[in-house]
Amino acid sequence: MDYTRLWLDYEPVESLKGRSFSLITLESGRDIENILSELTLAVTVMTGSQPLSSGIDTDYVIRLVIDPELDSEGYTLIKDGRIYSVRSGGHRGLIYGSFRLIYIFKTKGLGGDFKLECKPHSPIRMADHWDNMDGSIERGYSGASFFFKDNKVVVNERTADYARLMASIGINAVAINNVNVRGEAAFLLTERHRSQLIRLAEILDGWGISLYLSINFASTIRVGGMDTADPADSRVQAWWSETSRQLFSSLPGFGGYLVKADSEGEFGPFAYGRTHAEGANMLARAVKPYGGRVIWRCFVYNCQQDWRDNKTDRAAQSYDGFIGLDGKFDDNVILQIKNGPVDFQVREPVHPLFGGLKKTNIMLEFQIAQEYTGQQRHVCYLMPAFKEVLDFDTHSGSRYSLVRDIVAGKNSPSSSFGICAVMNTGSDPNWTGHDLAAANLFGFGALAFDPTLSPEEIAEGWILLTYGRDELVLGNMLKILLSSLDAYEKYTAPLGIGWMVNPNHHFGPNVDGYEYDRWGTYHRASHSAIGRDRSDRGTGYARQYPEPLFSLYNEIKTCPEELLLFFHRVRFDHIMRDGRTLLQRIYSDHFEGADTAAEFVRLWQELEGRLDGEVYERVLKRLRFQAEHSTEWRDRINTYFYRLTEIPDALGRKIYE
Amino acid sequence: MDYTRLWLDYEPVESLKGRSFSLITLESGRDIENILSELTLAVTVMTGSQPLSSGIDTDYVIRLVIDPELDSEGYTLIKDGRIYSVRSGGHRGLIYGSFRLIYIFKTKGLGGDFKLECKPHSPIRMADHWDNMDGSIERGYSGASFFFKDNKVVVNERTADYARLMASIGINAVAINNVNVRGEAAFLLTERHRSQLIRLAEILDGWGISLYLSINFASTIRVGGMDTADPADSRVQAWWSETSRQLFSSLPGFGGYLVKADSEGEFGPFAYGRTHAEGANMLARAVKPYGGRVIWRCFVYNCQQDWRDNKTDRAAQSYDGFIGLDGKFDDNVILQIKNGPVDFQVREPVHPLFGGLKKTNIMLEFQIAQEYTGQQRHVCYLMPAFKEVLDFDTHSGSRYSLVRDIVAGKNSPSSSFGICAVMNTGSDPNWTGHDLAAANLFGFGALAFDPTLSPEEIAEGWILLTYGRDELVLGNMLKILLSSLDAYEKYTAPLGIGWMVNPNHHFGPNVDGYEYDRWGTYHRASHSAIGRDRSDRGTGYARQYPEPLFSLYNEIKTCPEELLLFFHRVRFDHIMRDGRTLLQRIYSDHFEGADTAAEFVRLWQELEGRLDGEVYERVLKRLRFQAEHSTEWRDRINTYFYRLTEIPDALGRKIYE
Repeated sequence: MDYTRLWLDYEPVESLKGRSFSLITLESGRDIENILSELTLAVTVMTGSQPLSSGIDTDYVIRLVIDPELDSEGYTLIKDGRIYSVRSGGHRGLIYGSFRLIYIFKTKGLGGDFKLECKPHSPIRMADHWDNMDGSIERGYSGASFFFKDNKVVVNERTADYARLMASIGINAVAINNVNVRGEAAFLLTERHRSQLIRLAEILDGWGISLYLSINFASTIRVGGMDTADPADSRVQAWWSETSRQLFSSLPGFGGYLVKADSEGEFGPFAYGRTHAEGANMLARAVKPYGGRVIWRCFVYNCQQDWRDNKTDRAAQSYDGFIGLDGKFDDNVILQIKNGPVDFQVREPVHPLFGGLKKTNIMLEFQIAQEYTGQQRHVCYLMPAFKEVLDFDTHSGSRYSLVRDIVAGKNSPSSSFGICAVMNTGSDPNWTGHDLAAANLFGFGALAFDPTLSPEEIAEGWILLTYGRDELVLGNMLKILLSSLDAYEKYTAPLGIGWMVNPNHHFGPNVDGYEYDRWGTYHRASHSAIGRDRSDRGTGYARQYPEPLFSLYNEIKTCPEELLLFFHRVRFDHIMRDGRTLLQRIYSDHFEGADTAAEFVRLWQELEGRLDGEVYERVLKRLRFQAEHSTEWRDRINTYFYRLTEIPDALGRKIYE
Repeated sequence: MDYTRLWLDYEPVESLKGRSFSLITLESGRDIENILSELTLAVTVMTGSQPLSSGIDTDYVIRLVIDPELDSEGYTLIKDGRIYSVRSGGHRGLIYGSFRLIYIFKTKGLGGDFKLECKPHSPIRMADHWDNMDGSIERGYSGASFFFKDNKVVVNERTADYARLMASIGINAVAINNVNVRGEAAFLLTERHRSQLIRLAEILDGWGISLYLSINFASTIRVGGMDTADPADSRVQAWWSETSRQLFSSLPGFGGYLVKADSEGEFGPFAYGRTHAEGANMLARAVKPYGGRVIWRCFVYNCQQDWRDNKTDRAAQSYDGFIGLDGKFDDNVILQIKNGPVDFQVREPVHPLFGGLKKTNIMLEFQIAQEYTGQQRHVCYLMPAFKEVLDFDTHSGSRYSLVRDIVAGKNSPSSSFGICAVMNTGSDPNWTGHDLAAANLFGFGALAFDPTLSPEEIAEGWILLTYGRDELVLGNMLKILLSSLDAYEKYTAPLGIGWMVNPNHHFGPNVDGYEYDRWGTYHRASHSAIGRDRSDRGTGYARQYPEPLFSLYNEIKTCPEELLLFFHRVRFDHIMRDGRTLLQRIYSDHFEGADTAAEFVRLWQELEGRLDGEVYERVLKRLRFQAEHSTEWRDRINTYFYRLTEIPDALGRKIYE
């Protein structure tokens, strides 16, 4: 095998060794077969012998039971003496419960009696891959695609292992292709790739995962040979109906479409004077008969801005474009909303649409592909950031106002709600390029399933499952993971201002990289101040939040300091709450962040001999790069502000001229 | 024909109409045939009838005469009554004299009696093409290569017209391939492309032009299958000797090699601990038996600089790398030196090697491909800049100290001296993309032949030959051409500081584009000052010039203001000689430069109906683009400095925040 099994790599477990198990269920089906195989594999490796299919003479029994009283994706996991039972209202729940049992075996052994009741918080937990059919991955940092190669769909052993890994973290929906649907990818809807997609959908379905396809809104033109893609045109509607009928009738568990329209140059309903709602609803009606869904992205803004235009505010555009459409979308449309209003920066406020939309199904979009957070060459464990977003109180006035509850649909009878993440996987042997980036993959699944988990619990679980129990490994990896986001935030763009990266590829420091460009992401730093005023005295973006958030964000004195430069133009001599000036805070953050990155190397080096040699060397190399690269970040940012202000560091540290 | 003949497009001439001509010579050969055909064509079109080969019954006679007393490339052109005679010591002189006669016919008609004596100032007048064998052109802005396509050498009708055009401006040497010799281009030395190269060399030779090839210093490895390229290795020497023997014996007029070694990642003798001289001389000895030459580029510097390193000075590196080798090069080696010490910026001081090298053959390298001067999307007539370089007094202490005389070899008995330019041609129908960029092509040839010509004379000649005599066309085109360089210099990077362009492609403004990069081109602008100190209190670069230049450049108060920021770090409140602050000078230059570019559009629009419609529209479109783009330059630069200083324009003009 030319790739690892990540956290699903089983080893003998001391307390299970020599114990006999049986594995019993009355259920059947592709998915039940899969999870029985998984349990069989795990138990065989852990105990040393295969489980039996009758429980009469074995030390322990594992029972998988469907209980219609329970949630179809939740499970109750009970150990009562020699009986481990996994109970669920559906097969997906049995899958998740079984993996949970395996994790318990792996990390705790047999354990004493227990009873766990779990239910996924969000109905949809989705993995969005930005894979292109030529095998490249947009914002992919882990090698080539394993879904596509040479404009064909690839289905092989790795596909099955992928599905298994996704199921093991509770993912139940997958979009396999890039939301920018170019070239051959538009033809995924057609017969041309059907047989391979059927094989793929069967594999995913066998692990309780629905396949989604990203579609091009102009498909009727590009693929259908028509001269229009107007959603009000009955021929367009008929084409989508027929296309959908074919897809749903042939692809097991097919879920529907993911759509990026009228965004960053992608075609959309605006071309015909139609709204997002008219565009999305047309597609939604085509998939409605089959229980399908349309996921419509809210990442829509003017990407042809003139930097001289100081009125247009990109941050405000997503909310402005969709808030007026609340209630206008069909029940099987889901609006996909990025965690923040701009674009996956290391620090942004929570997107105001989460609190704003009251009558619309929504899905929260995270990105675990570290496009702006080190591109899997820096370690940056994102769960603390995700957790903050999920725990954020929107003050929306609805019964449930926390983001995690809103995106779980707690205020709605609909199950068309959820959480997704842009994936960080590729065909690298370790799946995620940086071995430590797998913590984000695992963590995303864990948090989507149960947002009450702490980043620390999740990281600890991932380390134990992946590297086993070695206290130094556990301790040092936890230190690295849990301080990585803070370090990255400190040594990159300061206090919510974002960007300051090289254009296009977005890697590495470049303070003015986007400053005079067309993307609307300006810091406007001058000799005395930096930032754009997004209060009601400026662009007014802060008004998109209800009270008390509006007032909180609207004033420099109350604005959370980590978001200070997102919301305000602030003088460099502004005194922060701890008494330092803004400038000194920027300098110190950058020195501290780079120091922390240097410390990662030392912490890792203590682990030599305690980890697989290849993993050790691979990570060491990346951590060394990160340490070096974080000094480049530190120095470029500090020098930029030093040149601007000509004020030296108060602590006399070296800033280059 | 899918391309124009540029200034060689003939039309009936009023005073010649109906006159009979005869064309007489005792000479023969490929080149004589060519120039006779050219005269025949010109006279036929201008008079309405073909010239005869006997002068007895014709109104006028043109005689081509070899006179061994005369210079082989110079000519004497005499009109004495009905006899026009072109006399030269060689065939090339007859070609140049004949074209001169055609130009006289075209612009002045028959004329009264006259006697002109001309002799090219520099022995070698060379066109360097950076064409790649895949058909692309490095820094090419006029379409694909017409020398190469799909990794093959192309020879067709256009090749002949190209040679004719080059001969018509006095070019006598051509390197057809990029100095960065990659991939297939290394195999131009081998049999694989020989038959096509023979055809090409024959065509060039027929117009008095020597073919040169850019070579890869690692050819013995890449092409020869050897494991070394060490110039001290006898196998390497033998390989080059044999390769050269084959090339010189098969390619008519073959001139030798052009070499970029140990520069920007290209391989060179440093890999074996050898000097430039050892590398160049090894090649020189291989071509020596055939009268061949090796042209060795001095564009060598550390391109992996850390921006934090404030000591290393790229400007100083070319001089430092070669000055110690003066006198160490064989007589058939020529060092090719860019006009300035950095890289074809709109304003640089003259390269200190011109005055520094006393015992070495040298060639001045210009660039008419407008890499840093608008890429043939902006009109930028470069002759005023070239003229300044040529007229520059190096104060070298030699008998001849002007650059134009030094590079012509006036201080040396050797004829291995000259001038070259990186070409601006491609397969666009008008050859140079921007129709007005052809003035740079024509101008380079004219100036290389006779550096005493003024930019205005040259521009006027080009306009008259290309567009005929229309006073408004002449007047407005002259205004545009002659103010274009000054305008470009004003609205781009200020006062000799250079760069401030987008990385890699070098087009468009980006003040910090190279500021934190590895290329050693830093402006280091801060709140109060800008520039690097290259005086003896700084990097010491100014010391590379002899007195009085050193003292002139070394002090802010004497440094020519157009070079102020090249040599000095200067406070923005520094008072310039006209009383304005440096900052105000920067602001005003940018407003004025952009205003001038806007004026070009107006001047051009006055010519509607007086020019070929396609030419008119094509140029208008580019001038409009330039006007718009120059405001982007103006605003980005002015805003950058406004943000840095927070000092507004003294005249209250709009600077964006």
